[in-house]
Amino acid sequence: MRMLELIVKKRDGQHLTKEELSFWIDGYVKGEIPDYQVSALLMAIYYQGMSDEELGNLTMLMARSGDMADLSPIQGCKVDKHSTGGVGDKTTLIIGPMVAACGVKVAKMSGRGLGFTGGTIDKLEAIPGFQTNLDRDTFFEIVNQHGISVAGQSGNLVPADKKLYALRDVTGTVESIPLIASSIMSKKLASGSDAILLDVKTGSGAFMKNLEDAVALAKKMTAIGRHVGRKVSAMITNMDEPLGNAIGNTLEIIEAIETLNGHGPKDLTELCIDLAAEMLVLAEKGTRDECRELAKDSLYSGKALKKWKEMVAAQGGDPDLIDYPQRFQKASAEKTVTAPQEGYISHMDAEGCGITASLLGAGREKKEDSIDYTAGIVLSAKCGDFVKKGDPIATLYTSDPKRIAEAEKKLLDSLTFSANPPEKLPMVYQWITY
Amino acid sequence: MRMLELIVKKRDGQHLTKEELSFWIDGYVKGEIPDYQVSALLMAIYYQGMSDEELGNLTMLMARSGDMADLSPIQGCKVDKHSTGGVGDKTTLIIGPMVAACGVKVAKMSGRGLGFTGGTIDKLEAIPGFQTNLDRDTFFEIVNQHGISVAGQSGNLVPADKKLYALRDVTGTVESIPLIASSIMSKKLASGSDAILLDVKTGSGAFMKNLEDAVALAKKMTAIGRHVGRKVSAMITNMDEPLGNAIGNTLEIIEAIETLNGHGPKDLTELCIDLAAEMLVLAEKGTRDECRELAKDSLYSGKALKKWKEMVAAQGGDPDLIDYPQRFQKASAEKTVTAPQEGYISHMDAEGCGITASLLGAGREKKEDSIDYTAGIVLSAKCGDFVKKGDPIATLYTSDPKRIAEAEKKLLDSLTFSANPPEKLPMVYQWITY
Repeated sequence: MRMLELIVKKRDGQHLTKEELSFWIDGYVKGEIPDYQVSALLMAIYYQGMSDEELGNLTMLMARSGDMADLSPIQGCKVDKHSTGGVGDKTTLIIGPMVAACGVKVAKMSGRGLGFTGGTIDKLEAIPGFQTNLDRDTFFEIVNQHGISVAGQSGNLVPADKKLYALRDVTGTVESIPLIASSIMSKKLASGSDAILLDVKTGSGAFMKNLEDAVALAKKMTAIGRHVGRKVSAMITNMDEPLGNAIGNTLEIIEAIETLNGHGPKDLTELCIDLAAEMLVLAEKGTRDECRELAKDSLYSGKALKKWKEMVAAQGGDPDLIDYPQRFQKASAEKTVTAPQEGYISHMDAEGCGITASLLGAGREKKEDSIDYTAGIVLSAKCGDFVKKGDPIATLYTSDPKRIAEAEKKLLDSLTFSANPPEKLPMVYQWITY
Repeated sequence: MRMLELIVKKRDGQHLTKEELSFWIDGYVKGEIPDYQVSALLMAIYYQGMSDEELGNLTMLMARSGDMADLSPIQGCKVDKHSTGGVGDKTTLIIGPMVAACGVKVAKMSGRGLGFTGGTIDKLEAIPGFQTNLDRDTFFEIVNQHGISVAGQSGNLVPADKKLYALRDVTGTVESIPLIASSIMSKKLASGSDAILLDVKTGSGAFMKNLEDAVALAKKMTAIGRHVGRKVSAMITNMDEPLGNAIGNTLEIIEAIETLNGHGPKDLTELCIDLAAEMLVLAEKGTRDECRELAKDSLYSGKALKKWKEMVAAQGGDPDLIDYPQRFQKASAEKTVTAPQEGYISHMDAEGCGITASLLGAGREKKEDSIDYTAGIVLSAKCGDFVKKGDPIATLYTSDPKRIAEAEKKLLDSLTFSANPPEKLPMVYQWITY
């Protein structure tokens, strides 16, 4: 078998067999197949796509290129959730405890943020003392005892994806739906859960800017699940404006606590109930309606908050901070941003808001950058709200006051005003069940 | 400027500016742009194509990446001819002297053969003593004195093409019409002639297997000529069966001499008159009809043969061999191949015949391979001929009798017989003038 033949086959629109895909992935990970042949193949895939069978095989081969997490020491059904990334997306912090409080195991391995979207691990590390670097046994023990643990990815997880992603990033082959699907799903399959809920975001703050692409991606990912025999459902959700009001690590932790207390922003609370319900459906806890009731009960009864406190304590964080979130360290500088004109906020560009938070110190551009946990934004108005000139729209937080002017400009540039109220967009566009 | 932006632009079907193409070609030749980005861009070009303007700019940038031959020391109009490669194609050996005998300068730099098609330089080196490695001054002197010289390519000619071709060869991006056009034309532009005739071959022995692709390639190459201000015409010619009867270096030299003596095979003689006429048209020697008469006269009057002898002598070859071609060294072994059945030869796969000659020792697989100049085939029947079982079809020549059995099988596998005479294909399908 020669790599050239695979490139030509795919270039001409034919399907690659499992053996051919294995030759490619194994050879590439071993360093036997050069980058320049792989980038040509990736570009051919960009144009020709992949069948569900090809994609299922590719994804499983990628997943198996490194360590496969074996979650069998955890009793019961393990359900994972993956978000394609958004601004202000702290849902994992809320639905994890909600689902765990309903008796479903959540053994979650999460990543760090890069660019304008935050990562769950970064957010959790804003809790002083919280350990995300857990060894295998501790991780399993916490899940078995408390039903939930969220840890950083460790070990040699999906080296094929690491290598392919780095190459795609510099060869114009990131924006390929089958390649995005295989990248996400290979990591999820390697993480070992029995069932996976995918939160595929669409809108100005999402990687998938339009609904059509988001649906196509979700369908490809659920097809991979079917092909490899895992239960995978997807929800297409709105990321046209930031989710909730808080953007930034400590600020989002505080908002998650408020939400678990039943006082969260409406959009965030609604979405968390929907996501948690769907995870419970995957765990076969009932119909969607029954699971929504379970999810609501776990949130409003305080059971989910209790689970959250248990997990924070088990992973070394101070559980008192959950009861007294005002004790979190505050940013040294803040600035209220006011409306420059009267009108309805007709659009609030989520990516622009995410970049604003990054400018304030909440994100990182490169892997090596450090994060200012206290930095970020709390929005006091959102899309559809009517404001008068001078009304507060948001508060900016940072440890570095020099950053405020640029951030304020970026935030204001992200806003559009109109004389009439904008159309209300749904929070969940579509359910794609396995 | 970043290479990634160029890849994404081309991937999305946009046109690259001259500055962007220059960034790519210069950066690649300097080693600043890695192969893996270039192969992704090449694959995007495979799918998206290139506009005439892009292609003209790319080709000129490639041509200028190394030495540009300056033919100004040669007086008068210099006309070059390029064949896209075929089996038994010895036309350069015949039309060069024909055109030179009509007073048009032929300063030709040729290449060696690889795979199943032969190279003019290899054929000329079958003449004992013939020097193809000429220094600049000697080359110019011979052209000025005798009107013609054929030399091997020297100097740093189009390094961008060398590097790009090597990459295309292993990344499935050879079969792209704009990339083929820029590769051929960059070398022709760097060779410095005022006008260029392209012999674009189509059929079983050509790189372009079908007429449509051959026409598309010819049109792209003439468009490049227009864009860069050179006179470039093309002829689409038949390469569905070998050209003439001889395949192999010494055998083709002998057939060229026979043709210059006016006793060549009909197909070869016809094509040479057509090609020579078109080169004379490019040199503004008259209308196509007038130039055909000039070409015929130069052939049948013996003037072309005289030019050929002058050139052979000037480049160190023994001119007596031209008068007594029976003195050429003969292969030590030969074998007559006979018809295995009765019928019309309805197809004679040119590529198969070329491979047969290679198997006998006439060609090389790798650049480093040496050639058996005496090896090859002389066909005694061609497409459309009727043969009885046992009639001779061809004679195989080689210095290595062990090669005969495999070669004979390959030759017979290249033949198709039919009860009725096949349709006669034209020698020239189309003229595409500048």
